[in-house]
Amino acid sequence: MIDPWASSVDYDKLVNQFGIEKISDLLNDIKNPQKLMKRGVVFGHRNFKEINDIINKKQDFALVTGMMPSGQMHIGHKMVVDQIKWYQERGAFLSLPIADLESFAARGMSFEMARKIAIEEYLTNYIALGVDLDNDNVNVYLQSENKLLQDLTFRASNKVNFSQLKSIYGFTPSTNIAHVNAPLVQVADILLPQMEEFGGPKNVVVPVGVDQDPHIRLTRDIASRLHEDLGFLPPSSTYHRFLTGLSGDKMSSSKPATAIYLNDDAKDAAKKVKTAKTGGRESLKEQQELGGEVDKCVIYEMLVYHLIDDDVELEKIREECLNGTLRCGDCKAMTSELMEKMFDDLKEKQIEAREIAKSVIE
Amino acid sequence: MIDPWASSVDYDKLVNQFGIEKISDLLNDIKNPQKLMKRGVVFGHRNFKEINDIINKKQDFALVTGMMPSGQMHIGHKMVVDQIKWYQERGAFLSLPIADLESFAARGMSFEMARKIAIEEYLTNYIALGVDLDNDNVNVYLQSENKLLQDLTFRASNKVNFSQLKSIYGFTPSTNIAHVNAPLVQVADILLPQMEEFGGPKNVVVPVGVDQDPHIRLTRDIASRLHEDLGFLPPSSTYHRFLTGLSGDKMSSSKPATAIYLNDDAKDAAKKVKTAKTGGRESLKEQQELGGEVDKCVIYEMLVYHLIDDDVELEKIREECLNGTLRCGDCKAMTSELMEKMFDDLKEKQIEAREIAKSVIE
Repeated sequence: MIDPWASSVDYDKLVNQFGIEKISDLLNDIKNPQKLMKRGVVFGHRNFKEINDIINKKQDFALVTGMMPSGQMHIGHKMVVDQIKWYQERGAFLSLPIADLESFAARGMSFEMARKIAIEEYLTNYIALGVDLDNDNVNVYLQSENKLLQDLTFRASNKVNFSQLKSIYGFTPSTNIAHVNAPLVQVADILLPQMEEFGGPKNVVVPVGVDQDPHIRLTRDIASRLHEDLGFLPPSSTYHRFLTGLSGDKMSSSKPATAIYLNDDAKDAAKKVKTAKTGGRESLKEQQELGGEVDKCVIYEMLVYHLIDDDVELEKIREECLNGTLRCGDCKAMTSELMEKMFDDLKEKQIEAREIAKSVIE
Repeated sequence: MIDPWASSVDYDKLVNQFGIEKISDLLNDIKNPQKLMKRGVVFGHRNFKEINDIINKKQDFALVTGMMPSGQMHIGHKMVVDQIKWYQERGAFLSLPIADLESFAARGMSFEMARKIAIEEYLTNYIALGVDLDNDNVNVYLQSENKLLQDLTFRASNKVNFSQLKSIYGFTPSTNIAHVNAPLVQVADILLPQMEEFGGPKNVVVPVGVDQDPHIRLTRDIASRLHEDLGFLPPSSTYHRFLTGLSGDKMSSSKPATAIYLNDDAKDAAKKVKTAKTGGRESLKEQQELGGEVDKCVIYEMLVYHLIDDDVELEKIREECLNGTLRCGDCKAMTSELMEKMFDDLKEKQIEAREIAKSVIE
């Protein structure tokens, strides 16, 4: 296993303090683990062992991941799509909510606008990146249009009180009630594939950033409370790190200087790569003496997450950086070229994908 | 106007303290006022003047009243049905929610059971008592099955916070979230007839017991906050007293000794009348000297609410009671006979009504 962030202790702390387990401890049991699992991008889990057993036995399970239609999709989001593909290849039922109730409550976004963004940004790129959404084993839905989801939200709301939500989400008495309900809509999203309408109780996996763990814990708790009535099982989860933004901060949909958008054209994407913060030293001399700071390098992250499939090749780049033989300029040029190639391919696929995307939620 | 509770000050206090206005001040402007309005059973209102103007101008308006499917319907409930009929005769669109989300959250009643009780108790008796439910100008619905209602609940939840609900309903942090949402479902019930699907913004009247005024005030507040987006008008309301139970306490669905159920047979109903608490004195002599305490008499209430249509006749009974010439025994026998007659008629109508009721929410 390659761990590009071997020096980082924050994630270890999370693992120790909150009961999240390490994916690395399971890697030997996972057949053809997803690239991001091997590379420690997907670093933690709750009860993934059961999902892995189910996969190995070729039994039914589901994957849930939501789309927040709040802006442009960027290369950071692609990581989740790659995970979806891996689960779809292993027979997962895909349950993919579009969080338009949440975007309305949190940002006042109209349902019409949310639908448009969901189709043009999310569904188009999911398809272009290789997820098969035109498939009976997939349920893409708008929260606002899903009666069954709203029924389940109501059932969930009957199993939790204000005090619990307050302790998890920091709500105050002035929090509006739509906000108070928002996490319960997410809980219902995660539990939905276990409804009779989708074949009843089953194992479900939810790949999330670690900031979403409170939702997972709440959902596991409510699933247990609904077990007697509806037979629900607590969902499993995996936790991933995030691709750093170009400037070294968070990559954000709403900050163009931080992100490469999937709807950027290939030339622009390639150009943006060259603006990314590297782990390079002050001078070439220093670089040759000390080597690059590979674990602080956004360029290297792009290679790890998206651009180099071969682990041996990636390891070679890492070593050449660390020992000072690979220069940042050359590395950037190569990465920029790989990004342009990836985007050339993506642009071609987006054309057809756009048409299919429209039909997915019509 | 006859006021059988002229001595009661509690209702006056309500009128003065909470901004409820007296129906009596409007009576001269109301054409053929409903019997219960004339008799002070419907004693208060908010903004009924506008409804009355709309009625006089024969314009569109709606009436909303909910059914809580929690048990047997009794003669106390009949009062609401009589009001519905009066509004239906004046062209009201009737919007009649069955509160199954609330009975589930509050009492754990299954949706199947709620539907059964709604049909067999409420809809059957509404029809038997003369409401025309088989009519395009009527919408009877189960909350749990109404997607539009749930959307509107969500819109309402976006306009109110925990603190406001707490101050109205006394919620605590340990109140479960389904309970916190319950009043917002009621708010949505009241606002529903103003949705585009029902012809858009219009005046709405809600006849309620005064204990329901907090819901009305909350709804009027939220209607104003949704005015900009949806054009909603604050609903009007009327307030009624409750028929006292046979024993002198509250008439309750769940306490058979207090109630005459609409599904009782005529003989039983007549017999139960004779168990009712009267305003009779200790001895016949005392009765002849002091007269009966008519305002404490449940028998007299039955006459006022349900059994005597002619105001002059009712006034005569009241006076004969007060001056001691009418004996309780005779009065009870007469009332019992009138009740039996009313029930004979009701029993006959229930047979056909039962069949129609099934089709109303199928």
